Amino acid sequence: MEKRKIDLNSDIGESFGVYKIGQDEEILPYISSANIACGFHAGDYNVMNKTVKMAIDRGVAIGAHPGMQDLTGFGRREMAVSADEVYNMIIYQINALKGFIHIHGGSLHHVKPHGALYNMAATNTVIAEAIAKAVYDTDAALILYGLANSELIHAGKKYGLHVAEEIFADRTYQSDGTLSPRTFPDAVIHDKNIASAQIKRMIEDNLVTTVDGTEIPIHGDTVCVHGDGIHALNFVQHLTEMFQEAEIKIESVSR
Amino acid sequence: MEKRKIDLNSDIGESFGVYKIGQDEEILPYISSANIACGFHAGDYNVMNKTVKMAIDRGVAIGAHPGMQDLTGFGRREMAVSADEVYNMIIYQINALKGFIHIHGGSLHHVKPHGALYNMAATNTVIAEAIAKAVYDTDAALILYGLANSELIHAGKKYGLHVAEEIFADRTYQSDGTLSPRTFPDAVIHDKNIASAQIKRMIEDNLVTTVDGTEIPIHGDTVCVHGDGIHALNFVQHLTEMFQEAEIKIESVSR
Amino acid sequence: MEKRKIDLNSDIGESFGVYKIGQDEEILPYISSANIACGFHAGDYNVMNKTVKMAIDRGVAIGAHPGMQDLTGFGRREMAVSADEVYNMIIYQINALKGFIHIHGGSLHHVKPHGALYNMAATNTVIAEAIAKAVYDTDAALILYGLANSELIHAGKKYGLHVAEEIFADRTYQSDGTLSPRTFPDAVIHDKNIASAQIKRMIEDNLVTTVDGTEIPIHGDTVCVHGDGIHALNFVQHLTEMFQEAEIKIESVSR
Amino acid sequence: MEKRKIDLNSDIGESFGVYKIGQDEEILPYISSANIACGFHAGDYNVMNKTVKMAIDRGVAIGAHPGMQDLTGFGRREMAVSADEVYNMIIYQINALKGFIHIHGGSLHHVKPHGALYNMAATNTVIAEAIAKAVYDTDAALILYGLANSELIHAGKKYGLHVAEEIFADRTYQSDGTLSPRTFPDAVIHDKNIASAQIKRMIEDNLVTTVDGTEIPIHGDTVCVHGDGIHALNFVQHLTEMFQEAEIKIESVSR
Repeated sequence: MEKRKIDLNSDIGESFGVYKIGQDEEILPYISSANIACGFHAGDYNVMNKTVKMAIDRGVAIGAHPGMQDLTGFGRREMAVSADEVYNMIIYQINALKGFIHIHGGSLHHVKPHGALYNMAATNTVIAEAIAKAVYDTDAALILYGLANSELIHAGKKYGLHVAEEIFADRTYQSDGTLSPRTFPDAVIHDKNIASAQIKRMIEDNLVTTVDGTEIPIHGDTVCVHGDGIHALNFVQHLTEMFQEAEIKIESVSR
Repeated sequence: MEKRKIDLNSDIGESFGVYKIGQDEEILPYISSANIACGFHAGDYNVMNKTVKMAIDRGVAIGAHPGMQDLTGFGRREMAVSADEVYNMIIYQINALKGFIHIHGGSLHHVKPHGALYNMAATNTVIAEAIAKAVYDTDAALILYGLANSELIHAGKKYGLHVAEEIFADRTYQSDGTLSPRTFPDAVIHDKNIASAQIKRMIEDNLVTTVDGTEIPIHGDTVCVHGDGIHALNFVQHLTEMFQEAEIKIESVSR
Repeated sequence: MEKRKIDLNSDIGESFGVYKIGQDEEILPYISSANIACGFHAGDYNVMNKTVKMAIDRGVAIGAHPGMQDLTGFGRREMAVSADEVYNMIIYQINALKGFIHIHGGSLHHVKPHGALYNMAATNTVIAEAIAKAVYDTDAALILYGLANSELIHAGKKYGLHVAEEIFADRTYQSDGTLSPRTFPDAVIHDKNIASAQIKRMIEDNLVTTVDGTEIPIHGDTVCVHGDGIHALNFVQHLTEMFQEAEIKIESVSR
Repeated sequence: MEKRKIDLNSDIGESFGVYKIGQDEEILPYISSANIACGFHAGDYNVMNKTVKMAIDRGVAIGAHPGMQDLTGFGRREMAVSADEVYNMIIYQINALKGFIHIHGGSLHHVKPHGALYNMAATNTVIAEAIAKAVYDTDAALILYGLANSELIHAGKKYGLHVAEEIFADRTYQSDGTLSPRTFPDAVIHDKNIASAQIKRMIEDNLVTTVDGTEIPIHGDTVCVHGDGIHALNFVQHLTEMFQEAEIKIESVSR
């Protein structure tokens, strides 16, 4: 039997100027894919150069992590943007990042939209397709990361892109397969054992238990982990140990 | 005898959001090279897409026109930036532009720094070399545009880049070959006949008469023309007619 | 019988750096109230100083015109902002403007939110009240401008503020008293005679004919006019002539 | 004999969006004056509201800390700005801050320019006078903080402003009374005992020993302390204990 595998991805390179955020160096040894901010919602040209180099040195697959041009809101505020604007902001950001990858001799592996762009693309077909088209037009071999079973995944497939469906260890699911909104009291799973059991089940059995107790099928290629704070790093360590015991290999998504 | 030729370049794509500046469509038929703003001192991702398409449709050679991240000052305010910062801001901007060129099937021809970056690079070796290195690292086949005989030209040559030396029709020269600073009363030539005579002399005889009346040698590959306002457009028309009569061909700089 | 009167307001000071927009000097002689951009969606500190001085010299009542921090979108893109954020961005902007008014010896007369902020405040009670509270906390004597009969007007009244209800000459109305959305084919009235007849009717009879042909009551204190382009200026001239004939006095809103 | 006294000032409110910097709550109990960032080089409208409230609750004198519009460089990069630009950016920022002070019932006590603006104002008369004029025009009762014996102090006096001369515990002085540039190897005093001895001498005897061993007269009204990191906080604690022993009272500068 083929060994099971999963991709661990994390958002890095989110510092800006004198402002430091996240523990990029600490999280890099645990992950197989890095989503690097492109200077719109976070990151700047200096941070991008340094972060790209660090990820290449670590052998981690590099993804562009484009966001809304909203540093004040860290790209988390949804904004009324047209499909053309989204297309253009994606082209701009992923190519700016490609520049830094090129000078360090690496190659761009994937694109994962950030924050409000990620959320809007999960349900809004127009925005999802604008993103998928921008990725496709830049390089049809790029992998598009998005919320499992979301509009973004559908849009990626429509453009013939290889997609990576993202699942969450520490978030609960509704019976329709969507994530419970963060405003819901039970949206986040705080117990790391429950969280790692959920992710294990999703990887091994393609099943998840929803908030109303039913079991639904789910498919995931990649898990998002965070590197901000000792708690987050502990959880990543916990996850990777569980994966090792369960003989689930951590490996970046391949085409 | 080989026909003489000259490149006419112009800064375009400097509009931003609802703000329109320049008459890009009107100037494009007259020029052989377009320097397109990259979203730092001017231009935005929407303007860049549209401008790149327009330049490709017109068959004009496309250059990146990177500047300081200073929209308020239109990139004209000199700023204390390190070599690393300059290198990184150039990598970021020219690659963002390359993204739009790629989707329209074109290719990047040259890089010309804007405003304060252009001026600092003319005299500051450290900044000049940071720019040249960023251009070289991005693509060694790119042509670097800079003020004739400036530090930027020297830096470009040091990196083995093909360079294009820029000369001015409507600016006076000092006896050391530098432009008269704009703060000088006689810095700008307002008479279009004198201006076109000066540029003709520079192209045909490689000579220019300086403000103190002496003649000095000068070599120019490209002339910068402006497209903002009816006056500027008239002057371009005047120049191109003079070139036609003098059998000077307008052609983008080739490697 | 008391002579009827109306306030004519216009958004000015929307230039930014080298970017010029609007014809502020041309529109000022016709209006009684100026809404001056505060550097977030348009305007910058230099433009603000110059514009405030110009308005004071002309004896026009000065209003702050705060908007979303979105220069790329000119503050027209709706954004998911919290009540606290809205409150704080309003405090920031109107006080920055007050600084320029103070140095020129004038006083702030009113506040009118711009673009997306204006639109969101028309229907979103939470945002409307955050704006009203910020205005009230800054100075309870300020007049709050908003769409006639909108949530912003209600919020202003709730805080005990004097309000000015804005009506439009060149926009059609729905039978519920709201403006027809700009996406509707009949949203804008292009015929200046129809537009001036509509505004006259609203001022003299407090009535407007809606798109479905019914007549509904409406109350307006102020009319928004534009100063960008010869067409807009002609219309303002047309309006003021009609007001003169109809003996409707143009006068800023008083408390 | 009158008890000696000194003002301890610190730059706070420098966080931005999700980015946290400095330990504002920890440093506030030790200082008598707070310089609050105004949204240009650091801080945002949300941070400003919160920081102003915190300072007022603590009874600390509030100063505006305006800087260059350069978040990427944290306002530390010198920039070629005109006197008018400086005047306008100061008016804008201190009045935006005044808005938040007003809603919390406090009053603005002083203005201290930040980073590159502080440094340029120390030696550049034109910039120094633009700042002093902006402060004076806003409120002639404001206190202007600047480097001891600098052009900014002279400009403040010229405008009849009350000034506060800033001295440094952890920086060495040149024989002409200026600070040793940070690029010099001996610019910073790392030994906290030497630093506190230097500041004590400056306060008690108005003397400082320069890097070449001579003693020169110096007058100081205020000392700048930092609150970023445990090391900085320890030093502040160390300083305040020394002041207590030496019977030097910590008190904000009064007019």
